[in-house]
This record gives sequence, structure tokens and C-alpha cells, in this order.
Amino acid sequence: MADAPYKLILLRHGESDWNAKNLFTGWVDVNLTDKGEKEAVRGGELLREAGLLPDVVHTSLLKRAIRTANLSLTACDRHWIPVARSWRLNERHYGALQGKDKAQTLAEFGEEQFMTWRRSYDTPPPPIADDSEFSQAHDARYAHIPSELRPRTECLKDVLERALPYWYDDIVPDLQAGRTVLVAAHGNSLRALVKHLDGISDEEIPGLNIPTGIPLSYELDGDLRPVARGGTYLDPEAAASAIKAVANQGKKERK
Amino acid sequence: MADAPYKLILLRHGESDWNAKNLFTGWVDVNLTDKGEKEAVRGGELLREAGLLPDVVHTSLLKRAIRTANLSLTACDRHWIPVARSWRLNERHYGALQGKDKAQTLAEFGEEQFMTWRRSYDTPPPPIADDSEFSQAHDARYAHIPSELRPRTECLKDVLERALPYWYDDIVPDLQAGRTVLVAAHGNSLRALVKHLDGISDEEIPGLNIPTGIPLSYELDGDLRPVARGGTYLDPEAAASAIKAVANQGKKERK
Repeated sequence: MADAPYKLILLRHGESDWNAKNLFTGWVDVNLTDKGEKEAVRGGELLREAGLLPDVVHTSLLKRAIRTANLSLTACDRHWIPVARSWRLNERHYGALQGKDKAQTLAEFGEEQFMTWRRSYDTPPPPIADDSEFSQAHDARYAHIPSELRPRTECLKDVLERALPYWYDDIVPDLQAGRTVLVAAHGNSLRALVKHLDGISDEEIPGLNIPTGIPLSYELDGDLRPVARGGTYLDPEAAASAIKAVANQGKKERK
Repeated sequence: MADAPYKLILLRHGESDWNAKNLFTGWVDVNLTDKGEKEAVRGGELLREAGLLPDVVHTSLLKRAIRTANLSLTACDRHWIPVARSWRLNERHYGALQGKDKAQTLAEFGEEQFMTWRRSYDTPPPPIADDSEFSQAHDARYAHIPSELRPRTECLKDVLERALPYWYDDIVPDLQAGRTVLVAAHGNSLRALVKHLDGISDEEIPGLNIPTGIPLSYELDGDLRPVARGGTYLDPEAAASAIKAVANQGKKERK
């Protein structure tokens, strides 16, 4: 076991086709936009400039995170490191909302229900029907997951519960071996990890946003607790500006 | 252990910057050209059209093979499969020839020496100096390889000897588990594997060429022998035409 501090880098994928179209995405496997690709490359350049070079990468099973990892690792000349992937790092499953327009959903269900589905820690949207075109019930990549374990909808609490076994069993051993670990994943799977690492309460977590494409670096002590709570964004100004924009967007939605 | 036949797909990376410039490449980590990227995507489309979908991919540690794997797997919607990488699948180390212009080398050393270095089964070029700009002596990705094992030049026999442990210990178990295995690698590491699989003699192997970007599919019996010697190219006409072009290029060089 290597000496702490352990080095962990979290990277949220860049803009996807459905981010740009304002649709609920969840487990639907959409691609990055050109802007999203550029964000991923910039993320890798920030790693290179910081001399923070991953020894191993963990990704979800979704294209937007996988491609973000590929593009950023190529940009910092680490395309050759070992790769591990798991559905446990996937974005939150958005249930019956997957594929729906966010503005239409807000208009249809009203602000309170909409914000509950988006931000409540423990209230999932209605489950998606297996025969929906936006369901993953028949997707080969999830065929190995027993039916009772495979999500049909999730709240953030569900995401944390299914992500933690992967954290403990797959990511922590890499950290303890002294490897700098990159996790390339999604807004909600990373929020779940950060909630766990920083000990954020259920009440406070709705206020946390992680910007896309800016590596968030954590040093963890021997007990896997952050040396500095909240970690460090490799481009702190861009991160602060992106977080502020999301906060303002929330205010606008609530008007 | 799954029932044979086992399914193996070999894919040689598309055109690289140094293929296009006619330089000896070996372990120098050059990128794909635009043409090479298109070849990789086309390779993935051929897999998709054939319904031959990899369950796991093995690559070298070199960008041109890694990006070929990424691009072709994205094209057949298999970007999410498990990935393994090893230096044992790298291109032949070209020793002191790495970075040299092929035409200049031919002029400088004469046809006989040139063809011996390119095509002899068991004569490697002179080793590269550790302080050469084209040496990998200080490359982090090979730091885990003990010095006595790390190549400074290789003939095809050396490539086969260092690739076989990976074949037996890492690829074969995937085949035996019933997985369709994609190996995304290089002209010479794939020639070495094919020599082993098809039982090609040392005298015959110089005549074997594997075209870029066209998946070569093998079914293997329970003893890991090809059901059909030579396997099947997923685009046989394009493969035949590419092989013929290389043969003609050889004649031209010998003129």
C-alpha cells in the first residue's frame, strides 16, 4: 500500500447532443457535440499543464464519458494507461423522463414536481417501461446485470448506493497501490462520489454542481478522506464561472 | 470453458503519419492520418455489417492501434466493452532504423541489407541508442518492463517470442470464456500471431502481408487451431487488392 495522500481526479464529460437539445438523457447513449469534444481535449491539456498524469482510468459504459476519457488522455499523452469501465459509474437513470424535453416536462408537470425529480435526493422519477424506445432493457452492455439490480429509474441516493461498491472494490485499490486515478463520468455519478468523499448532507447536496470538462483533483489521506474538502479544480476561474451559470439557470427555471 | 469455435478478430491500424512520410516507425508513438482514421471507422462498420461484435478488445500501447480500436468500436457501437493493453502487442521495435527515411536507408545500405532488416525472420537491425530521440528508454509507459526484457531492436522472431506469453495468458482465456476477441495492433505483431496460428514457416512468413483497417476473422477450434487456415477478411476484395499492391511495391523496391 502506497503512502497517502492518494491522488484522485474526477472529470465530468463535455456537452452531449442531448445537453445541447435540452433533453433528459440518463442512460441513453448519446454522443459528444463538437463543443463537448473540445472540452474533453481541454481537460486533458489541463492535466498535462498541471503535471497530474493519470496511471489508470475508470469510465462509465456511456459513450460521452468514454470519449471524454479517450480525448483527454490523448491530449495529455496518457492514451496507453489501463482502462476499467462499469455501469456503476453511469449517469443517473432518469426513468420515464429519458428522452423528454426539459422545458415541456416543466410545463406539463409544474415546477414543484419538476424540481423534485431533478434535485430531490431520494425521490426518483417514475420507472421507464421496458418497451420504451429510451429503455436499456434490451441493451447488450447491461445483459450481465441481474434484473433486480438493473435500474429502471434512480434518484441520487440510488446512484450513490450502486456507485459505492465500485468505489470501494475497484477504485480504492488503485489509489492504495499509489496510482493517480482518473474517473471520467457524469454529473450525478460524480456528485454522488463527491457527496461521499466530502461528507455532504442530503439537504446540501442539491446545491452542488460539477462543471463539465474541468478536472477536479482530490488528495485523500490514509482514511480516504479529502485533505482539502471540495478538492481543487484545475481551472478554478472557469469552474467558478460555470457553477455560477448553473446556479443562475436554476433561478431562471424557478421564475 | 465455452464450446469452440472461438472467435478472434485481428485489426491492423490504419495509415499513420509516418506511413504517409515513409519513415521507419516501430515503437515511435505517431498518430493516425485522416485516412487512417477513416480506415478505422470503416473497419468498425465492417464488423457491424458482419454482425461480428467484439466482447473484449486487446490493444498495444501505441496511439495508432489504440485510436484504431476506439474509432472502430465506436462505429459498431461497442465502445463500452472491456479493454486490455500490453506492450507485447506493440509493433516490431525497429532499433536504430526508427525515425529514418526508408528510401534514404535503402540508398545508404543497399538493397540486400535493407531487405534483410525489413523481411528477415531472425535478423534484427542494430539496436537503438538510449539517448536517441527515437528511443523509448525513458518512456513512462514502459517503465514497468525490466531492462533485460525491454527491446532496443527486434526481428519478427523476437516479436513472436514476446507476443506469445500475452496470447496464451491474456487472449486465450477470453476466447475460452466464449468472448469474441478483437486484437487491434500492428503489421508485425499481427504477422507474428498469424504465423503462430496458421503454422507458417520461417521461410514463408516474409511473403505474408496483412492489410490495414480490414478486420481479419478467425474461428479457432478447441485446440486453438484455425478452422480455416488464413482466416477470412471481412472485405475480401479490398484485402486482396491491398495485398497485391504491397507485393508490387516489394517488386518495385527490388528493381
